[in-house]
Amino acid sequence: MNVDGKAYRTIWLGGDGWSVEIIDQTRLPHDFVTVRLTTLDETAGAIKSMQVRGAPLIGAAAAYGLCLALRGDPSDAALNAAYDTLAATRPTAVNLCWALDGMRMILRNTPEAGRVEAAYRRAAEICDEDVAICRSIGEHGAGLITSAWQAKDETSADEERVNVLTHCNAGWLATVDWGTALAPIYVAHDDGIPVHVWVDETRPRNQGAALTAWELGCHGVPHTVIADNAGGHLMQHGLVDLCLTGTDRTTARGDVCNKIGTYLKALAAHDNGVPFYVALPQTTIDWTIDDGLAEIPIEQRDGAEVTHITGRGADGAVQTVQLTPDGSAAANYAFDVTPARLISGLITDRGMCEASAEGLLGLFPEQRQAAAR
Amino acid sequence: MNVDGKAYRTIWLGGDGWSVEIIDQTRLPHDFVTVRLTTLDETAGAIKSMQVRGAPLIGAAAAYGLCLALRGDPSDAALNAAYDTLAATRPTAVNLCWALDGMRMILRNTPEAGRVEAAYRRAAEICDEDVAICRSIGEHGAGLITSAWQAKDETSADEERVNVLTHCNAGWLATVDWGTALAPIYVAHDDGIPVHVWVDETRPRNQGAALTAWELGCHGVPHTVIADNAGGHLMQHGLVDLCLTGTDRTTARGDVCNKIGTYLKALAAHDNGVPFYVALPQTTIDWTIDDGLAEIPIEQRDGAEVTHITGRGADGAVQTVQLTPDGSAAANYAFDVTPARLISGLITDRGMCEASAEGLLGLFPEQRQAAAR
Repeated sequence: MNVDGKAYRTIWLGGDGWSVEIIDQTRLPHDFVTVRLTTLDETAGAIKSMQVRGAPLIGAAAAYGLCLALRGDPSDAALNAAYDTLAATRPTAVNLCWALDGMRMILRNTPEAGRVEAAYRRAAEICDEDVAICRSIGEHGAGLITSAWQAKDETSADEERVNVLTHCNAGWLATVDWGTALAPIYVAHDDGIPVHVWVDETRPRNQGAALTAWELGCHGVPHTVIADNAGGHLMQHGLVDLCLTGTDRTTARGDVCNKIGTYLKALAAHDNGVPFYVALPQTTIDWTIDDGLAEIPIEQRDGAEVTHITGRGADGAVQTVQLTPDGSAAANYAFDVTPARLISGLITDRGMCEASAEGLLGLFPEQRQAAAR
Repeated sequence: MNVDGKAYRTIWLGGDGWSVEIIDQTRLPHDFVTVRLTTLDETAGAIKSMQVRGAPLIGAAAAYGLCLALRGDPSDAALNAAYDTLAATRPTAVNLCWALDGMRMILRNTPEAGRVEAAYRRAAEICDEDVAICRSIGEHGAGLITSAWQAKDETSADEERVNVLTHCNAGWLATVDWGTALAPIYVAHDDGIPVHVWVDETRPRNQGAALTAWELGCHGVPHTVIADNAGGHLMQHGLVDLCLTGTDRTTARGDVCNKIGTYLKALAAHDNGVPFYVALPQTTIDWTIDDGLAEIPIEQRDGAEVTHITGRGADGAVQTVQLTPDGSAAANYAFDVTPARLISGLITDRGMCEASAEGLLGLFPEQRQAAAR
């Protein structure tokens, strides 16, 4: 999407045709800085330090990390060592291993002399495939926003624009382009629908206030940052036309595990008759799990993410301040599970469906046999 | 309640018998500083700058502000001027005018020579009455915590302690002592019930992370600060035995207008069968209003409270940092309304009742006649 009027992806080949450029997401929203990666270690470091983050983007970055490694040494040993280095950067990222496994399978069957070229070709494919998937989610979901706009009349609390509430960052910064939850918003915006986004700040890591607000602003999408506490009030007063979030993991019956706080917004949407949609590439569906609440373990992160926060001081320097009294403990659950009963529908790269086993199997009939086993 | 083992109120007479001491709440949670007020202007400044905040405490401080004014000049003119100065400090605080009106009525009927003494006597009464009201709320509500403790068995998700979730600060810092929502917690804790409090940080102003955590910690009540997003997840997993919040305004049918985000926690409690109680002095009941959603205007505050946050930097200095990108707007709704249907009961200084017109009239039968009109 656009930054200062120029179209960007989150990862791209440098002008030299071999180095890899990324946006340093740790510097956002205060500084827009691109970083040039020239070695395996630089790439691994960029993933580890979260200069690149978001499952699809991590996979793409890892693929390019293999390319950079093979430029120096295209042997099996170097390939395996690079695989291990990259796989260890974010051990729980599913896309990371998926991208690396695919790369290694192709490269092992490629003569050493052709490996670098094959690696770059496959890495570019991974990026293009992700863009196509996200674009497809965007096109399938944009109709919801268009319909909401067409349904506006003088009885609407806000007849000037379609108000979409989102939580966390499921935008182009988390993917290669377009994003998942934000893709329908970008498509609708580009189509001229007057869409405005309520951006949950998404404590404790503030991905909404920092990343979602930044990318929407750069692309020119009207938006307003709100405290996570505010969404219920907005829905009570007709100021949200639909909710759109991403998901880290979706169960076979349509439960959604996403950033902590998603469940609270789904409850408010349900209580106020506001449609609540979840956007996802089919790769986030875990067909082995039905009951998200019972079966998905929830990561607990460092309490310091709750007790401390980082921002830009009056002197322009980015710094971290403590919010809580010394001696007060903090708990930091990273995700929660929204039961399928609260979800109006799922938006996938194959189309939309009900958040239910039947709904998902309708879109992915090849899973029926597996489900029956 | 206790600070470093010593019992404090939020406002008290100095050792000289006439000056007034307060805790500077703008310095919490990082510094515990008491301030000595010796003049009307100092008192008005302390209210205005929120060194003292919370409706009951503001009323008490204003009462003492009149005392300090009359020491210099006990005339009617001085009394009226002091009234106006104090009433203008926080124009929407109901308790402020209530306290000032009561003081002026007494003082106008007192000869000038006796006014200072009468003023101090009434100010002390206002404080003592508030303490008695809050203590009564605490005693009426503590039974809920005790019962929850007695109901624990080996099937409980956490059988070691009673887990109470609270939002914002409705503690002794907002009153003269005990607090409202926290009063039952202090009473239960002092009675030896192992109570643990989940403290919502309460963005954007962080009254939970700053004030509630501080006062619970000082009194020795186990507590854990959480992002506002986390409460739903905790309730889904049986880690909250009851919710207890305060209220800024309660309607005749039991709708509750409280800090933004209260409604989301009430929804989660309802969805998970967790009791949700609201504690209030009867003075917060607005008998003229039924439908909180339709009839209570919600204050919108400066968006800078969302885009910026204050904490203690690594160098120990308290500073403010910006969280959002330049150019991103923020909205800041200060309160929301929780419909009575989501509230398990109200805890008042007269006892507990259902959150309904019938429930409230049962406790306050003198309002029946007014309701019938």
